Amino acid sequence: MPRMPTSDVVLETHLADSKDARLESYKAFLRIPSISALPEHADDCRAAAHWLRDSLTAAGLEHAEAVETGGHPIVYADWLHAPDAPTVLVYGHYDVQPVDPLDLWTSPPFEPVVVGDRMLARGAADDKGQVHAHVMAAGALLAARGNLPINIKYVFEGEEESSSIHLDHWLEAERDKLAADVAVISDTGFFEGNRPAITLGLRGLMYAQIDVVGTAVDLHSGGYGGAVQNPANALAVIIAGLKGPDGRIRVPGFYDDVVPLSEADRAAFAALPFDEEAYQAQLGLPALVGEAGFTTLERRGARPTLDVNGIWGGFAGEGSKTIIPAHAHAKVSCRLVTAQDPDVIFEAFRAYVEEIAPPGVTTTVQHLGGGFPSLTPMGHPATQAAARALEATFEQAPLYIREGGSIPVCASFTSILGLPVVLMGFTPPDENAHAPNEWMDLRNYETSIRAIARMWDELVDLPR
Amino acid sequence: MPRMPTSDVVLETHLADSKDARLESYKAFLRIPSISALPEHADDCRAAAHWLRDSLTAAGLEHAEAVETGGHPIVYADWLHAPDAPTVLVYGHYDVQPVDPLDLWTSPPFEPVVVGDRMLARGAADDKGQVHAHVMAAGALLAARGNLPINIKYVFEGEEESSSIHLDHWLEAERDKLAADVAVISDTGFFEGNRPAITLGLRGLMYAQIDVVGTAVDLHSGGYGGAVQNPANALAVIIAGLKGPDGRIRVPGFYDDVVPLSEADRAAFAALPFDEEAYQAQLGLPALVGEAGFTTLERRGARPTLDVNGIWGGFAGEGSKTIIPAHAHAKVSCRLVTAQDPDVIFEAFRAYVEEIAPPGVTTTVQHLGGGFPSLTPMGHPATQAAARALEATFEQAPLYIREGGSIPVCASFTSILGLPVVLMGFTPPDENAHAPNEWMDLRNYETSIRAIARMWDELVDLPR
Repeated sequence: MPRMPTSDVVLETHLADSKDARLESYKAFLRIPSISALPEHADDCRAAAHWLRDSLTAAGLEHAEAVETGGHPIVYADWLHAPDAPTVLVYGHYDVQPVDPLDLWTSPPFEPVVVGDRMLARGAADDKGQVHAHVMAAGALLAARGNLPINIKYVFEGEEESSSIHLDHWLEAERDKLAADVAVISDTGFFEGNRPAITLGLRGLMYAQIDVVGTAVDLHSGGYGGAVQNPANALAVIIAGLKGPDGRIRVPGFYDDVVPLSEADRAAFAALPFDEEAYQAQLGLPALVGEAGFTTLERRGARPTLDVNGIWGGFAGEGSKTIIPAHAHAKVSCRLVTAQDPDVIFEAFRAYVEEIAPPGVTTTVQHLGGGFPSLTPMGHPATQAAARALEATFEQAPLYIREGGSIPVCASFTSILGLPVVLMGFTPPDENAHAPNEWMDLRNYETSIRAIARMWDELVDLPR
Repeated sequence: MPRMPTSDVVLETHLADSKDARLESYKAFLRIPSISALPEHADDCRAAAHWLRDSLTAAGLEHAEAVETGGHPIVYADWLHAPDAPTVLVYGHYDVQPVDPLDLWTSPPFEPVVVGDRMLARGAADDKGQVHAHVMAAGALLAARGNLPINIKYVFEGEEESSSIHLDHWLEAERDKLAADVAVISDTGFFEGNRPAITLGLRGLMYAQIDVVGTAVDLHSGGYGGAVQNPANALAVIIAGLKGPDGRIRVPGFYDDVVPLSEADRAAFAALPFDEEAYQAQLGLPALVGEAGFTTLERRGARPTLDVNGIWGGFAGEGSKTIIPAHAHAKVSCRLVTAQDPDVIFEAFRAYVEEIAPPGVTTTVQHLGGGFPSLTPMGHPATQAAARALEATFEQAPLYIREGGSIPVCASFTSILGLPVVLMGFTPPDENAHAPNEWMDLRNYETSIRAIARMWDELVDLPR
């Protein structure tokens, strides 16, 4: 049931006329070195917030403000004059990653330059470029039509690259003000080349530490070996017991809340252009190994995991030292998928570790953090609206992907505000987001503005 | 069948008359700071060797020399005028441990003082006190009788505390010269209080390192988790697979060459004064755990082991880091018992590790060293001669013990010279051998001289 879009002729004319000014505005935004993780850039972060607030006002959006949070400001703006239409909450971030190693940049990271079709600068893709596209899209619609087809609330934070410390608290405090029907996040990218993609889901996380303690000090392995439990051997037994040779996690109840993949989900994975042999060769591995019954892309995108992130205990120097370590430790984390709850998983994990811990040592488990997974299925009306908008503007149907990592704020929009989240991002897969020479494809940047505008048209009939 | 000893009246008279001179000689030996591990004490080690050579000559022993080896000299002497009697090779060492932390010593480590019944100085027990007792015993016998009941060859090295680097090479080169019937080592101690003990055996060692390698760099656990084998998880699976929950080592063939404990052996272990609860409490452990079917003393003295000595890989800092480690490693060693061969055990270990190593990573095993176990059974005539000598002089039957650790030279006497080894040592169990305030019980020192002299009498009829 393809939907006829509003005519875009006036919009397109406006966008064509304003292209040069838009590029200059984009560059101006990129020139502000808003590195949130470095305290010496706190003023720059505030400057970027104020620049963004003023740009939102200039675009015709209302109630624009840079809200002080105790950290870097959150920029808010809205336009709420479509009383019968849905309300969309748009999220992005104006802060950027640090730039070291500086000597690997081909041009200074905060002096944006256009090289061919690329905008080269820190933040060009992640996420200033996408935030800017949202402001430009709204501005163009308001300039071309005098109104927007839907209501919009913008939330642009300045701490995404430094753990979003103040965001959740603010979302909770402003729950009423932020009421909406759907959240749209543009902070993801394409799977391959210039083909648009919708990220359906992100995995959650449960991060724990296992501590196995024997004696107060290391023991001589000759004098005591055989008579006492070895904490490092015991730790290995615990870790080995957490997962079977089939890759299945043995923690009781671990899979209880995992939403199984549908045939359509599996077809979407199978449709992704993916060269498994090249992937394995690039990683330099003798084989790809994972949970039985799933493909590599399913395993990394749609299935929960259990990985040791670090392990240590006893002697790690050159040569040999004949000790029984006094204690041994491991950081172990699970990537989670919908609808696993990180706290529930931690409790099951802790209980199972204690159950299988060998005797003769003291085993404890610490909870070091976590986050909820998120998933907005392919069939969701908002996902389908995004798909139509992307296909109409990029002239290709989008791929449906799932990211193995986590964007904590994504889960916050669902858990705090109760919103489905559409991850509609526009960066190239090799954009160097956290590396030197970050870039954005300027053709995608321009098309993304059309896609965003079209998305608002497509969302008019979103069931509420 | 207790054996009537030669009358000791003349010997005892001589020993009583020479007591003061003996104590002064003991002190003179202890004053030489022969710390073999510290290059700045090389001249002191040589001085100790020359002092010892001259003392052997003064005692009436022959062919005394300080043999240059490229490191610290080996002191050799002999007395070979008992043509129908056995030949004993006596081993000890004149070098000592470093003395730090100096501020914990109640008197300077190389200024020996007598406090009550104790001689307090570095080396008083380990091993100068026992070497000195051997020289004094031979000297007293020669002075009292004009001859020895057996032939003796003395080998006193100066590198025992710094890995005996040159000893094996010299033993091999001098195999003919060192031909004997039995070796006697006085470098061990009592099990409890002042009750004499014979150390029947020492464990050997096989030391290895397991290296599990995945990718060239750490991977993001979100982007790759589930799709690749985790080297740290794989390492845990390997280690867990090496030993069963019953404490049995699963390496095929591992126990093939282990000489089983006899009923007499087990009775000797059971006879040792050992408070298992106090031992556990002192270690602060919730339980003592080991191989099923054996007691704690058997496990640490007479059974082989497999212990992780160190394990490392990935992130070990504060907080959480979401990586899949590029590689993970463990140092793993086995204590061995007669008649396990460390090289054979390493090969079996390596093959089994490679067999059970999970797919998707590259697992290799390095051999970091080892040594043979040694055991001279309770029933051996030389052991029984020592037992009679100890009982006659200490007026208590000796305990039979087995040390869980290794004295590499002990295995060398067996493997290079083909000799059974009697470990007849005299130090108190709490003598601070490698710690500040090392001491020797002077009553034991005096009695040990009688015990050594008596041992030579008891060995006259040793079957050859």
